[in-house]
Amino acid sequence: MTNKPSVKRRPRWSQRPADEGWRRRMYDIIFEADDPAGKWFDIGLLLAILASITIVSLETVPAYRENGALLNAFELVEWVLTGLFTIEYALRLACVRRPMRYAFSFWGIIDLLSILPSYITIFIGPSSRSFVILRSIRLLRVFRVLKLWRMMDEADELSNAIWRARNKIIVFVVVVLVAVTISGTLMFHIEALTADGINTSSQFTSIPQSMYWAIVTMTTVGYGDVVPQTAAGKMISAVLILLGYSLIIVPSTFVSAEFVNQATHRSSHPCHYCEAYDQREDATYCYRCGKRLDG
Amino acid sequence: MTNKPSVKRRPRWSQRPADEGWRRRMYDIIFEADDPAGKWFDIGLLLAILASITIVSLETVPAYRENGALLNAFELVEWVLTGLFTIEYALRLACVRRPMRYAFSFWGIIDLLSILPSYITIFIGPSSRSFVILRSIRLLRVFRVLKLWRMMDEADELSNAIWRARNKIIVFVVVVLVAVTISGTLMFHIEALTADGINTSSQFTSIPQSMYWAIVTMTTVGYGDVVPQTAAGKMISAVLILLGYSLIIVPSTFVSAEFVNQATHRSSHPCHYCEAYDQREDATYCYRCGKRLDG
Amino acid sequence: MTNKPSVKRRPRWSQRPADEGWRRRMYDIIFEADDPAGKWFDIGLLLAILASITIVSLETVPAYRENGALLNAFELVEWVLTGLFTIEYALRLACVRRPMRYAFSFWGIIDLLSILPSYITIFIGPSSRSFVILRSIRLLRVFRVLKLWRMMDEADELSNAIWRARNKIIVFVVVVLVAVTISGTLMFHIEALTADGINTSSQFTSIPQSMYWAIVTMTTVGYGDVVPQTAAGKMISAVLILLGYSLIIVPSTFVSAEFVNQATHRSSHPCHYCEAYDQREDATYCYRCGKRLDG
Amino acid sequence: MTNKPSVKRRPRWSQRPADEGWRRRMYDIIFEADDPAGKWFDIGLLLAILASITIVSLETVPAYRENGALLNAFELVEWVLTGLFTIEYALRLACVRRPMRYAFSFWGIIDLLSILPSYITIFIGPSSRSFVILRSIRLLRVFRVLKLWRMMDEADELSNAIWRARNKIIVFVVVVLVAVTISGTLMFHIEALTADGINTSSQFTSIPQSMYWAIVTMTTVGYGDVVPQTAAGKMISAVLILLGYSLIIVPSTFVSAEFVNQATHRSSHPCHYCEAYDQREDATYCYRCGKRLDG
Repeated sequence: MTNKPSVKRRPRWSQRPADEGWRRRMYDIIFEADDPAGKWFDIGLLLAILASITIVSLETVPAYRENGALLNAFELVEWVLTGLFTIEYALRLACVRRPMRYAFSFWGIIDLLSILPSYITIFIGPSSRSFVILRSIRLLRVFRVLKLWRMMDEADELSNAIWRARNKIIVFVVVVLVAVTISGTLMFHIEALTADGINTSSQFTSIPQSMYWAIVTMTTVGYGDVVPQTAAGKMISAVLILLGYSLIIVPSTFVSAEFVNQATHRSSHPCHYCEAYDQREDATYCYRCGKRLDG
Repeated sequence: MTNKPSVKRRPRWSQRPADEGWRRRMYDIIFEADDPAGKWFDIGLLLAILASITIVSLETVPAYRENGALLNAFELVEWVLTGLFTIEYALRLACVRRPMRYAFSFWGIIDLLSILPSYITIFIGPSSRSFVILRSIRLLRVFRVLKLWRMMDEADELSNAIWRARNKIIVFVVVVLVAVTISGTLMFHIEALTADGINTSSQFTSIPQSMYWAIVTMTTVGYGDVVPQTAAGKMISAVLILLGYSLIIVPSTFVSAEFVNQATHRSSHPCHYCEAYDQREDATYCYRCGKRLDG
Repeated sequence: MTNKPSVKRRPRWSQRPADEGWRRRMYDIIFEADDPAGKWFDIGLLLAILASITIVSLETVPAYRENGALLNAFELVEWVLTGLFTIEYALRLACVRRPMRYAFSFWGIIDLLSILPSYITIFIGPSSRSFVILRSIRLLRVFRVLKLWRMMDEADELSNAIWRARNKIIVFVVVVLVAVTISGTLMFHIEALTADGINTSSQFTSIPQSMYWAIVTMTTVGYGDVVPQTAAGKMISAVLILLGYSLIIVPSTFVSAEFVNQATHRSSHPCHYCEAYDQREDATYCYRCGKRLDG
Repeated sequence: MTNKPSVKRRPRWSQRPADEGWRRRMYDIIFEADDPAGKWFDIGLLLAILASITIVSLETVPAYRENGALLNAFELVEWVLTGLFTIEYALRLACVRRPMRYAFSFWGIIDLLSILPSYITIFIGPSSRSFVILRSIRLLRVFRVLKLWRMMDEADELSNAIWRARNKIIVFVVVVLVAVTISGTLMFHIEALTADGINTSSQFTSIPQSMYWAIVTMTTVGYGDVVPQTAAGKMISAVLILLGYSLIIVPSTFVSAEFVNQATHRSSHPCHYCEAYDQREDATYCYRCGKRLDG
């Protein structure tokens, strides 16, 4: 067989029910994207997630958060969505073979987290004392956006790629941290310290502030809220920018190289005869020895 | 033969007329860059497009839009250019084998869109009521710039590359969206929520505003119009910048790797037997038919 | 044996003591990460470094540097940490085979530098005259962050990679310098020079200031503290941004390519005969001795 | 011979004199970096260039340009440097085999341009009328920085790399131009056009201004001097940033891929037996067939 069947790797907690009728059907709709009804389920879920995020966001806009009628409408839609997500959660629990494993898996917790805040707010009530707590709990609903992640076929692949590159990312962060600490301290010394004491008009008010500047600068974000004002500060910061820019290429290329290699080698099986790697994905014959790859 | 003839792949709607004399000649001038007369046609078209875009742009400059004499001059040049583009459109329609297919193709619509706005403005007239509509229609002429795209030999290749990478670009956008939503909500929570209610002096006025900040920050644009002001906000945003910067490397390298691979495999010679392109540069045998490539 | 033993390449000054009991044991704890006790030593050291950097940073925050009680607490923790680092330095000196070589090695100097400033401050005293000198010496403690660097396994590899790419980094810096000088001068000419003399309201007050702008712009940091204000200046700067952005890709890719190649060739198994590392991943024969790699 | 002699490719106009004594010696000193005396010549030239650029820059600093004594000192050093560069130019003319070819070559013109401005200023004199012209001519001296370029061994290689990638760079610029024109017009429409006419408080005052914003944004420079202020403008600009960021990856990776490939294939000769490319630079045996590469 030359056609590679598209195998969707399933997480351990969600094995397809072996025998039962409606549970198996439900499982295919909820967990498999290939099923026609499953496609409609996915589209519905996508719309529900986007609507939910939109409402959580718009509730905080000043023009809307004083408009009572609009807030009531938001509330109504919110409860409908919470209802739908609750049904989704119940169905997922009902149709997987091992409900407890699902409930304590990463996605199970995300699914629970996307309905819990709405129910908790009933018990707290809109009393003024618990304003921040209430707000914070309501904002937790934003994690519903993570459900989008599960819908992507490439999500697993990407998570794995990030996981395999974790060492390189740590190296990257340590390099940046060392550079940020030293250049932040240097700039504080140049910009804020004078012969008379600490220059209070400088924007580099403290080392943590200078480190914030260094991070904003070395990642080339460059807000411009903290900026050197003395000639010496500008000169040193120009040197630091160039140095930082040159140095940041190193670890970020380190990380990139990891991914380029992974991408190159990802789907290739070596030739059985000469063990040449890096065959094209659609190759029938080995590029080096000319033998059939599936022979 | 070792020299690979430069084959310009033609879109389906623009097949060269088979027999007729002047239509075929016209076709070569308009559609083929190799023809000497066609080169002059291309240069003329390039200048007309650039002149047209320049006029559309300059008309909106405050110093010029009150200057009546200048506006009349712009108007005059504009009509000359519209006339030229109309002739070009008519000629293209006249000399392709299937005019209707061309008219409804992407480039046919762009060609129509680059002359239509000028004619519509005659019917609307400069009445004050339809000011915005008139303006909007006039601004549509800016799509003439897309004609530049067609003139590039690499345009097809680039469009194909983008099209093949569409899945990766979607993954990239979803990753950014998830990160933006969560970090935007987090920053709104830290910067704007206080024990007393919502801090109105914060620049993070709402979650959509915070998401705008997150996009501007994670792509390293960093305008500086929305900036954290509390110590906690600066600390969290520094962490988010580093995290975002590290994470954004992943999907953007994902996309890059796709193109590097495409570029690596692009320039090779096809197999003499089965004419399969995209052989590895160091291949000895064809990946499709297994024959020696230098045989 | 197919498992490659994890060999930690030791610098020359730190050879493991050959015979003695406690010195060898101490050496393993301090210099080897594999030892269980060594792991706890590493974690303790990591915490001490982070605590130390946190204190150096927080001491400069305006709200804390006027708070006497807090400063005393900082002082106390600081002396405890200095004590610990002194013990660490003494132990390192005691257990390496050649203490003098260690003392004058890069890491030996860093270790000394991380305890010396604290002791020097005793002799200077908090007199007002030596305020800046005292401050500067205290800030030197920040170099303790470099101890983090030593703890990374990849640090050596990264340093080597940077060292091998030094020529490319110099080319990168020279290219940027030439571009920065010419575009800085050009922008000063356009923005600041008028027929009447020098326009003092321009933000491009001098060529050094313009060169600072050019560096901030070409590295895409873009603070926005120096920005073109004339139409001509904006046009030229837009062209310079595009040109600079296109040109900066060249040397930075130059550097990247170096690392991608290094990364590609890095992880291979050495030849069994001549022990040459850095074989191609798909190599059949050793590039140095020509023996079969799987023989 | 296994050692590859370091051959410095000479441009056509500077062939080493064939017979004469002092001219040949002089040629080696000036044009060859390997010669010991030539090394000192290079270091002297480097210092002279840096000093010259420093003076041209510092002359424009407000604090210095009113200081008569300092300006006189600058003037003096300037004339010494001009003298040195004049001698250098004369010696180069004297010792190359074909002086006229050198004089009209790129580097010959740069060498002339680096001394001419100083001499021209004598004839113009410091009259107030010709202030801008005088200034402009003096600023031309900044092109002396290009002499740095010639001193780099990699300069030729880099120029060639840029030259070979010129098509890709043009594609890159055209893509950016099309995207900038369309998104600039769109943002002008959204931010500046209202039902009543043109909103004069918007920072998007005209399409050219909006295009400047688009370039500053899409290249992730992000000054923050032009920034969307309406909710719709922020939303559209967030989408444009993401779209632009995703799209700009494509052509810039296009260019990068070109260089990665060039870098990979640059120094490798294929094996004589099996024609395997991508040998290590220091390889003695082919990685694929195990034959000696220099056999």
